[in-house]
Amino acid sequence: MDIENWRARIDDIDLKILRCLNERAKYSIEIAHLKKELLLPIYSPDREARIIQRLMDENSGPMSDDGVRRVFERIIDESRKLEKDILASQTNKPNKME
Amino acid sequence: MDIENWRARIDDIDLKILRCLNERAKYSIEIAHLKKELLLPIYSPDREARIIQRLMDENSGPMSDDGVRRVFERIIDESRKLEKDILASQTNKPNKME
Repeated sequence: MDIENWRARIDDIDLKILRCLNERAKYSIEIAHLKKELLLPIYSPDREARIIQRLMDENSGPMSDDGVRRVFERIIDESRKLEKDILASQTNKPNKME
Repeated sequence: MDIENWRARIDDIDLKILRCLNERAKYSIEIAHLKKELLLPIYSPDREARIIQRLMDENSGPMSDDGVRRVFERIIDESRKLEKDILASQTNKPNKME
């Protein structure tokens, strides 16, 4: 295989990751709606720490555990931004949920 | 569905993302080996910009395009770190490839 072949594989897997990220975002939005109903805060630091710890435990490499942590911190941060934006746009109030 | 059900779905999709990330990392390492043979630099800014632009073009939401960009910048950054570490450990020389 040459560089272009491996890059084509990366392009395929990136689309798969993109689909998973959007799927994940949909679930986060559902959770945001439920949290709003239940008057719970968007930010759940314990849940976020558990998510990241589990993924580091499940990691079989070649990514380092710290690399996994950094990528998922970014994913979770984006998910939180999205939830806040969506709830703010629905309530039409300033976004002060944290 | 309650919050716990949606969280279980997120946990499933996170494992899928983790598997994709490690698969992607394996391909990056293959590319790093080839680049080393061909004396090419690890850092390919044009390729990285194209990857991110394509994913933003393909993005159908609910993630924002900027969110997609930020997550993939992190993924690509981790992938570059890994390639450099692996090549540095193989050559046993200081890591000065960029």
